[in-house]
Amino acid sequence: MKENKLLVASAHCDGPCGVYDPSSARIAAEAVLSMTKKLNALEIPEPSQKEAYIQYLNTFARYVAIKEEQAHIAKTEILVLWTDYFKPVHLEKYPNLHDIIWKATKLCSSCKVHVSEEEANKLMQAVEEIHKIFWETKGRDITWFTAS
Amino acid sequence: MKENKLLVASAHCDGPCGVYDPSSARIAAEAVLSMTKKLNALEIPEPSQKEAYIQYLNTFARYVAIKEEQAHIAKTEILVLWTDYFKPVHLEKYPNLHDIIWKATKLCSSCKVHVSEEEANKLMQAVEEIHKIFWETKGRDITWFTAS
Amino acid sequence: MKENKLLVASAHCDGPCGVYDPSSARIAAEAVLSMTKKLNALEIPEPSQKEAYIQYLNTFARYVAIKEEQAHIAKTEILVLWTDYFKPVHLEKYPNLHDIIWKATKLCSSCKVHVSEEEANKLMQAVEEIHKIFWETKGRDITWFTAS
Amino acid sequence: MKENKLLVASAHCDGPCGVYDPSSARIAAEAVLSMTKKLNALEIPEPSQKEAYIQYLNTFARYVAIKEEQAHIAKTEILVLWTDYFKPVHLEKYPNLHDIIWKATKLCSSCKVHVSEEEANKLMQAVEEIHKIFWETKGRDITWFTAS
Amino acid sequence: MKENKLLVASAHCDGPCGVYDPSSARIAAEAVLSMTKKLNALEIPEPSQKEAYIQYLNTFARYVAIKEEQAHIAKTEILVLWTDYFKPVHLEKYPNLHDIIWKATKLCSSCKVHVSEEEANKLMQAVEEIHKIFWETKGRDITWFTAS
Amino acid sequence: MKENKLLVASAHCDGPCGVYDPSSARIAAEAVLSMTKKLNALEIPEPSQKEAYIQYLNTFARYVAIKEEQAHIAKTEILVLWTDYFKPVHLEKYPNLHDIIWKATKLCSSCKVHVSEEEANKLMQAVEEIHKIFWETKGRDITWFTAS
Repeated sequence: MKENKLLVASAHCDGPCGVYDPSSARIAAEAVLSMTKKLNALEIPEPSQKEAYIQYLNTFARYVAIKEEQAHIAKTEILVLWTDYFKPVHLEKYPNLHDIIWKATKLCSSCKVHVSEEEANKLMQAVEEIHKIFWETKGRDITWFTAS
Repeated sequence: MKENKLLVASAHCDGPCGVYDPSSARIAAEAVLSMTKKLNALEIPEPSQKEAYIQYLNTFARYVAIKEEQAHIAKTEILVLWTDYFKPVHLEKYPNLHDIIWKATKLCSSCKVHVSEEEANKLMQAVEEIHKIFWETKGRDITWFTAS
Repeated sequence: MKENKLLVASAHCDGPCGVYDPSSARIAAEAVLSMTKKLNALEIPEPSQKEAYIQYLNTFARYVAIKEEQAHIAKTEILVLWTDYFKPVHLEKYPNLHDIIWKATKLCSSCKVHVSEEEANKLMQAVEEIHKIFWETKGRDITWFTAS
Repeated sequence: MKENKLLVASAHCDGPCGVYDPSSARIAAEAVLSMTKKLNALEIPEPSQKEAYIQYLNTFARYVAIKEEQAHIAKTEILVLWTDYFKPVHLEKYPNLHDIIWKATKLCSSCKVHVSEEEANKLMQAVEEIHKIFWETKGRDITWFTAS
Repeated sequence: MKENKLLVASAHCDGPCGVYDPSSARIAAEAVLSMTKKLNALEIPEPSQKEAYIQYLNTFARYVAIKEEQAHIAKTEILVLWTDYFKPVHLEKYPNLHDIIWKATKLCSSCKVHVSEEEANKLMQAVEEIHKIFWETKGRDITWFTAS
Repeated sequence: MKENKLLVASAHCDGPCGVYDPSSARIAAEAVLSMTKKLNALEIPEPSQKEAYIQYLNTFARYVAIKEEQAHIAKTEILVLWTDYFKPVHLEKYPNLHDIIWKATKLCSSCKVHVSEEEANKLMQAVEEIHKIFWETKGRDITWFTAS
């Protein structure tokens, strides 16, 4: 028994509706990187400076929550491509596909556990690699760009 | 492609089921104000007082999460009235409607970003104004009251 | 191990922020009743009338989803009052409290399983009874009204 | 009081993290259009053909859920741009901004209520218009493309 | 930009809190099988039998939603083990691990797309295989059992 | 009116699909206990040690979020058994059932409010008691075990 309050949607990925786009993973990874930078850039007040300290903790908690969430979205979007879009025929052409995906998802976790620009940049590179493989399999030439 | 794990409900607002009530926004705004006050009222222990400091950070993190969530619910409930309930005929009677809504949603964000009773009180006033407009368009006289 | 993708909020109910209001349960129960009526009122076309049949099934699916969701919200809101607001002192004054709540939540399930105005009306009555008990314990006289 | 089980995230939109991209709304709108087409293309078996009819209803229910969800995501993503990205300075340059957004969100609802390619195409056009305005305000020239 | 309304939790799996248990995937897979059987067992009334037909469509829509959701949960729980619990050392011992997981997740999709006891039974077998591998890596002997 | 963005699923508990299993509550309670211990075990750096302090706050925020979420899941899973599985016939045999459930849910809240191993252990005991009652009513002898 599980409560399952939320209807897990029919996940149009396995509709199938055919609308896959690695942009979703890229946008989330960008936000992870942005939040990581901002967390490291915040000045830390002394607990004795009450007003400033409250503002600091409020901002810190919010940025961590955003980083956490965006890392999770990045992971989820990467996994959707793996479980729903990629087929055995793609695996033949990209025999490292499973490993590329696995490592990319582990980078998402690493970005949660740490506040590390290095890890966040590695995640961006992993997403870019997946972007290239994805569009190659579609035979389309879509330029990689970032929104930020 | 997007994962879309959660089935976004048919939002009975656009069912349409006809059950609109600005109380939902008001209850959320009240909680934002309550949490803001409590966050400012917490005494901050020194990091060296281990047990008290852990309790403080636990409580702080929880209150920020509640404030964040309730501000988001308030924003969502206000937007539902705007996108689903209000029609062009209401806009004619209340030509500032778009702006009133826009500013109210921006107050929700401001209550997230800060720990400010002033902003939280402004949000309560904005919700009260929307309450008045809403019930006027329904031709009903519903008294504004708060639960707390 | 569970995935736990969604941060279950600190549920301001156990913040505690003190902002409880049975209106939330009432609004959801009203929507259940409204959807139940609309589902029964829809005319059923023959499967051979393709366009009308598609429109019927689309509307039906949406109304069921809304009914399901609102019944779940009503249940959740009732349970929040029970687990977070009501204290042993209230139980002494209302010795049937546990049973009143239990039966009300079972009515929520019943409204999901059936498309029955009778069950939906019973749910409305159960919520009204909880409304009365709740405001009595607060010593406030809040009139019961419906939004629809 | 509201239960608020899910922590509404700090919505990095109002973090602010600065990572806005109308692609999210576009991907969702594409899925709405795709599902609408597929729903209309399904052949309807007679209820007496048990196996085929069960398969039909299963597929239909799933596609409606996906359409509903994606229309909701499109709406949400459009509103995030409106409430979090756009500032008074943009409103001066695009005095119809409020109305463009309002109508786009109403198209999302319309795509839920109907199974209409016409409405879904109008939504795609509305999202394209918002894409153009958005990137103009950023002074960047990002080509509009679709993933499907 | 993405709205990210829900705070994606810190996913205790990558806390790490060390509490992994394939029971969660098994419970969900059991529910998928149960719903599949019930969907096939429902008697289909003629659309002309209004009351019975409404009841049928209500039950059908609910069962599909539960099947969809549980298949999604099963998939998610399987992926959590893969991305968060399994480490390179396990891959050495179970070189087919990636493929076992990939195929199990594709069975989850298949259970959504069809109303097939055969697919649901295959999913149960896949989960049992993962259960065995998992507990072997922990060096514990936990008996496989089902709740239903 | 309520927005109700998420389709509250048909909650297979009241499908009914017959797949109930108190393991879900137990797994969540284990995670609460694990997170509580880890929160208390973290060393607290001085705010002046910038890098260490940022890492501490990131970890702390994540662990609180996991504890919060898991306590909420435990509560929800316990309530599902109460509202959906247990019937009047069980109440006759276990006349304290309502109270056992009520107190268990209040322990979930207590585990959120505090960072207390004592409370977390009490929750584990409460879940074990519910496990025993549950399997007794099913006439099955399922051994209590923990995954961690």
